[in-house]
Amino acid sequence: MTTKTRTDLQDLDRVDPLAGFREEFFLPKGVIYLNGNSLGAMPLAAAERAKRVVEYEWAEGLIGSMNTAGWYELPSTLGRKIAPLVGAKPNEVVLTDATGIDLYKVVAAALKMQPERRVIVMEGSNFPTNNYMVQGLLEELDKGHAIRFAEANDLMDAIDEDVAAICITQVHYKTGRIHDMAALTQKAHAVGAAAVWDLCHSAGAMPVDLNGCNVDFAVGCTYKYINGGPGAPALLFAAERHHGKYTQPLTGWYGHAAPFDFERDYRPAGDIRQMLTGTQATASLSMAEIGIDIMLRADINAIREKSMRMTDLFIELVEERCGEFGFELVSPRDATQRGSQVSFRNEDGYPIVRALHDSGVICDYRAPANVRFGFAPLYIRYVDVWDAVDRLHDILDKQSWKETRYQVRAAVT
Amino acid sequence: MTTKTRTDLQDLDRVDPLAGFREEFFLPKGVIYLNGNSLGAMPLAAAERAKRVVEYEWAEGLIGSMNTAGWYELPSTLGRKIAPLVGAKPNEVVLTDATGIDLYKVVAAALKMQPERRVIVMEGSNFPTNNYMVQGLLEELDKGHAIRFAEANDLMDAIDEDVAAICITQVHYKTGRIHDMAALTQKAHAVGAAAVWDLCHSAGAMPVDLNGCNVDFAVGCTYKYINGGPGAPALLFAAERHHGKYTQPLTGWYGHAAPFDFERDYRPAGDIRQMLTGTQATASLSMAEIGIDIMLRADINAIREKSMRMTDLFIELVEERCGEFGFELVSPRDATQRGSQVSFRNEDGYPIVRALHDSGVICDYRAPANVRFGFAPLYIRYVDVWDAVDRLHDILDKQSWKETRYQVRAAVT
Repeated sequence: MTTKTRTDLQDLDRVDPLAGFREEFFLPKGVIYLNGNSLGAMPLAAAERAKRVVEYEWAEGLIGSMNTAGWYELPSTLGRKIAPLVGAKPNEVVLTDATGIDLYKVVAAALKMQPERRVIVMEGSNFPTNNYMVQGLLEELDKGHAIRFAEANDLMDAIDEDVAAICITQVHYKTGRIHDMAALTQKAHAVGAAAVWDLCHSAGAMPVDLNGCNVDFAVGCTYKYINGGPGAPALLFAAERHHGKYTQPLTGWYGHAAPFDFERDYRPAGDIRQMLTGTQATASLSMAEIGIDIMLRADINAIREKSMRMTDLFIELVEERCGEFGFELVSPRDATQRGSQVSFRNEDGYPIVRALHDSGVICDYRAPANVRFGFAPLYIRYVDVWDAVDRLHDILDKQSWKETRYQVRAAVT
Repeated sequence: MTTKTRTDLQDLDRVDPLAGFREEFFLPKGVIYLNGNSLGAMPLAAAERAKRVVEYEWAEGLIGSMNTAGWYELPSTLGRKIAPLVGAKPNEVVLTDATGIDLYKVVAAALKMQPERRVIVMEGSNFPTNNYMVQGLLEELDKGHAIRFAEANDLMDAIDEDVAAICITQVHYKTGRIHDMAALTQKAHAVGAAAVWDLCHSAGAMPVDLNGCNVDFAVGCTYKYINGGPGAPALLFAAERHHGKYTQPLTGWYGHAAPFDFERDYRPAGDIRQMLTGTQATASLSMAEIGIDIMLRADINAIREKSMRMTDLFIELVEERCGEFGFELVSPRDATQRGSQVSFRNEDGYPIVRALHDSGVICDYRAPANVRFGFAPLYIRYVDVWDAVDRLHDILDKQSWKETRYQVRAAVT
């Protein structure tokens, strides 16, 4: 390990092919925002879009905007756009509802494909809303299904011929560990199970290749690395080979074969639209397009490369400058095994996170004792990595976290 | 029937106690907007709110706005606000997700309360997404449940001791007919069934008394008469007596007893929060507060009185001035049996609606041959009623609808 200087990191910024993207985002003065893995920063153009959808499309266009402004088609329009970012075909993705609700749809669809089997494999330490949604579904099904929880390296062995489906988050929300989508999907298919993936912490942060991995269904978040805005609707993927064959239970009129015929009984659309339910939160949905458009102009391989380098540097600098204060790496040390975030364990994690907030470094705390830092390559600079560590070192060195008395601004997602 | 003049209607506007509210809305020049029953007009303050939630709360506050801007609590905060508008207690309502998804939750909860019964009573001619959502749920349950469809006056007789729940829309989307919520709920309870009501076309248009009628669960739209914005999240009501006793299947972390403990397994919150799933489309949700706040300042009895008078006048004027052109009333003639909309049947309804759009009168067409006019009392004037009929008469008299060649601006919800 060589001792780096702030100038070394500034040099990296100078040759960063993504450097120009930072200007497209609003970032509050003095803030180093290492929480884009919870909620991405605001693209400047999103403010214009919000104004347009409210003051022009809604105010002037009124209900006519369903057609003239393309509101009705937005879930498909934005799905087509975002598809290449996750390795999907344009007709395999919609942007709709929320991640949890979309997960309910796709897991229900996956379980129906193996009606004799009763086991679904999940990672118990995953962000728990996925467990909760599947538990709700299984209770509703009331057919004796059970979740088989396994952790990390044990996932592969947990997939056997009792398994109807696996449902795994590609990047762990706390540790940042990447699961091997190709291998786990291949194992699932080898035993006749379906593979459902959650891309919440991977979409927009690294290349994702759903079709290359032969994934059956997936969901993902657009308000983290894709910068779609708070609570922006989720992306939902269903492989084309399943279109017209699966069923999903949230059968609203947007998913009907002939929605404007107002037929009494449901007939599913034969394509990805079957995953739609009803009218969407239009302002939020429309605004998401801005973040997607920016993402599509960036080279996802360059994003990944910068992400790995930033997180490597962050680990190196924290260990070098703050190691004596008991910061223990929780995330994988190998960058290829790690998403765009780094977690450290420290017994005083919570007050330290509060002190970091007060110093302008926004990161978050995840019980127990876990301090999480996210690096969004489109707007975080290498020099921010230096400065964040510098402020952290200052807080630890002066023990100023012991006297933090400011307002708690705990991040909650 | 006396022949009225435009001046007579202007006189009514002069003494209208709601007249001042019109200034709080943006209405495009030259447009008479009789489609507030699909999408309410934009309150001027909504533009400011959209700007605030995007350019300040998101851009400046970033993830901290979950707490500091109250994002996390918005579903409950807005639920408490809207509760009195539908005759609910503050702790019985949340604003969350979409109507169809909320309907899925509450019907699932209602059916579980009568686990031995297999029939749910619905109105087949209702806006069909309600049928679709329940059909999806019943297929998922796979326990032999069936919908018993009945129309209008036959609904009461359809409720017998096989029935687990009724699920009825208070005001019919096409005819505007009002169902007797008190009597049908009473009948349901008398046979041991639960009562679920959909308030999409009644909330904000007339007094609704969920607790006075002893309703068990309800959902409703906030983007029609409540002017919450396109696709604004729905309201969901669960009577307090059921809290802590029901289950609903969309069990996300917002509905967990301790959402920030990140427990592996779901434990439901014991209150209305159990109906929540996950992170909401925040910009859309926040903007809905503007429409709710306006509504709460208006006297709902005055709204209802104006609504009945406007629709009475509209019927009178259409029949007097356009009757010869084959406009046949579809809605109930008795205003007390009618919501805030009027539908007429005309074989040439579709091109006539197009010609009306071109003349600036926005209404909509519902197959077959149904022309629908909605009257939102907060921003529609009595003189608009006159002018709309005048333009309709002109179109019919000159048969100008036969040459309509302009862009179709068909409303779709």
